[in-house]
Amino acid sequence: MKYSIITMVFAFLGAITTFAQRPPFISSPDVHPDSRVTFKYYSKTAKKVMVSGEFLTAPQAMTRDTSGLWSVTVGPVEPDIYPYSFVVDSVQIADPNNKYIFANERFKRSIVDIPGKTTLEHSLQNVPHGKISYRYYKSKTLGTTRQLLVYTPPGFNSNGTKKYPVLYLIHGGSDTEETWTKVGRANLIADNLISQGKAVPMIIVMPYGNVRPAPMPDFTKDVVNDIIPFVESNYPVLTDSHHRAVAGFSVGGGQTLNIGLTNTDKFAYICSYAPYTATEEFQKNFSNYSPDANKVNSQLKLFTISVGTEDFLYESVKKNIAMFEEKKIHVKSYIVPGGHTWMNCKQYLTTTMQEIFKN
Amino acid sequence: MKYSIITMVFAFLGAITTFAQRPPFISSPDVHPDSRVTFKYYSKTAKKVMVSGEFLTAPQAMTRDTSGLWSVTVGPVEPDIYPYSFVVDSVQIADPNNKYIFANERFKRSIVDIPGKTTLEHSLQNVPHGKISYRYYKSKTLGTTRQLLVYTPPGFNSNGTKKYPVLYLIHGGSDTEETWTKVGRANLIADNLISQGKAVPMIIVMPYGNVRPAPMPDFTKDVVNDIIPFVESNYPVLTDSHHRAVAGFSVGGGQTLNIGLTNTDKFAYICSYAPYTATEEFQKNFSNYSPDANKVNSQLKLFTISVGTEDFLYESVKKNIAMFEEKKIHVKSYIVPGGHTWMNCKQYLTTTMQEIFKN
Repeated sequence: MKYSIITMVFAFLGAITTFAQRPPFISSPDVHPDSRVTFKYYSKTAKKVMVSGEFLTAPQAMTRDTSGLWSVTVGPVEPDIYPYSFVVDSVQIADPNNKYIFANERFKRSIVDIPGKTTLEHSLQNVPHGKISYRYYKSKTLGTTRQLLVYTPPGFNSNGTKKYPVLYLIHGGSDTEETWTKVGRANLIADNLISQGKAVPMIIVMPYGNVRPAPMPDFTKDVVNDIIPFVESNYPVLTDSHHRAVAGFSVGGGQTLNIGLTNTDKFAYICSYAPYTATEEFQKNFSNYSPDANKVNSQLKLFTISVGTEDFLYESVKKNIAMFEEKKIHVKSYIVPGGHTWMNCKQYLTTTMQEIFKN
Repeated sequence: MKYSIITMVFAFLGAITTFAQRPPFISSPDVHPDSRVTFKYYSKTAKKVMVSGEFLTAPQAMTRDTSGLWSVTVGPVEPDIYPYSFVVDSVQIADPNNKYIFANERFKRSIVDIPGKTTLEHSLQNVPHGKISYRYYKSKTLGTTRQLLVYTPPGFNSNGTKKYPVLYLIHGGSDTEETWTKVGRANLIADNLISQGKAVPMIIVMPYGNVRPAPMPDFTKDVVNDIIPFVESNYPVLTDSHHRAVAGFSVGGGQTLNIGLTNTDKFAYICSYAPYTATEEFQKNFSNYSPDANKVNSQLKLFTISVGTEDFLYESVKKNIAMFEEKKIHVKSYIVPGGHTWMNCKQYLTTTMQEIFKN
């Protein structure tokens, strides 16, 4: 009886949309206790529907029942958080019935969370939680007001009795300021590591790294001249380089190298994940790089570059590492299995968070 | 030169996705100074592409150039924020190149913001900004940890020297806890009205109103027994009924009536927007409603019901208003032009925020 009334609500609300036929209520994805996952999609007109995901080696076809409900069950899938999409007659779409969207400005994909039998570092656990704040700041560099996200740890108090170190954390090339929380679960990784005493309580600032049509170096200026001053005037933070870190993935991993290594007086921790470095800014900074290695090594507490052996940038990143080694810069490399994915990203961040602000 | 390198970055990154052919970088939507809007979509295989939006009376066909770029320019469009989607060979999708998504669990649409020649109440203006925090709370009622959003106003300080009134603001039937900020811009409406002295500084709590498969009355319990205590133990707030308001849209408008009118000792302000009331909970509470009208009227500082004359619930809402009037409950009705839309929702909230916590 209760269900039938709820169904009526949606049937009725459905009538008001632009499309006369709102599909029935569908639960997708359904993650089963044995780590298999059922995906569903409703269409009476589609000829072929597939699910494509980073847990599959190839897209899997769904089958249709007489009502127009398409579905497929896959797996068991290795516990993790994965992006996926549906391909409906060659149109790639996010799962309409899944509210968890991959935050991105060039594609729309959904997210599925396969819980582990043991708790994973990115899972929602019964520990104290920090919070994520959405803030606006004025960028003089870019001449506009921009949004960034700020994670403050459990027990955070703005009264200034405790001051915190700050990690500046940058997303990949077509991602947004939300990708590190919505896909990377940076907030939950921090909650979990802090509660276990594996990471120190820290503030994490997640800016929006894309500055199109401005040139990329303007983002470096934005971080140094606009974002850091905004954070330091709005949060109780430690302002010396030993309490400031920068990290980022892919294009953001390249930005991390540019921002960090041109500002070693400001950042003692530089952690670059699968950096994309075929950029004009990187060329300018590093094609004739001749650092005072002793000075840089004394300024930096930790400089790491992470990459997966299946990453399409693996060879390029190995060259980056070799270049820094050749210049006698102390760089710690983390070479792990996996590709250019947010599954790997979460691992890189989990490692980084346990190493920064500790020595 | 700069552009070509950026283009290379994306071409290169594109190669790693599941789909071999990542489309070229496309800017969509493009809002022109004269309030016309150009929508673009890339597909070499589609046979027909249309844009469908709440600013159009009917979907508009896009035309294709030889490269596979589909586009159409529409308008001028009355300045506002509108949901829209593309229909690609009968598959409805969000605009892949627009990062602004309508937060919803049953469909994926995009958002386009047409700025006005004069500033609109929901626009990003050069005023002090509050912040939105994403928080987890434990719901004993629902036996789980849930997310809610909390807006704190400009100048907010958690040290307790100033205590704030609280508006509990509920989304529509298939929306999420993010819809009031991402589509309704509740935070910017508050920033603007507070900076103009038209609204008092307040905290706005935006919970997730769907409790499926639990029965709907459990959300009423969740608000009263879990959310309010969470807010009151984590924020410096005034805890008497004269400093507590509840408002909501559609299914959330119905929830507002249920939550508010069964708890008039807790909420002195009840503002219901285009309520959907054909629910078991509403039936139970109001089919044999026999209030002590004098008592309720003395408890309530403001009770409003808003609806648009083109709203599919218009006749139903008029009956709701008549029912409360018949029971001698003082209800203020706001009948305005417009339909069951988030454009109307923003108007309702703008009106509400200027009236609550003032008398």
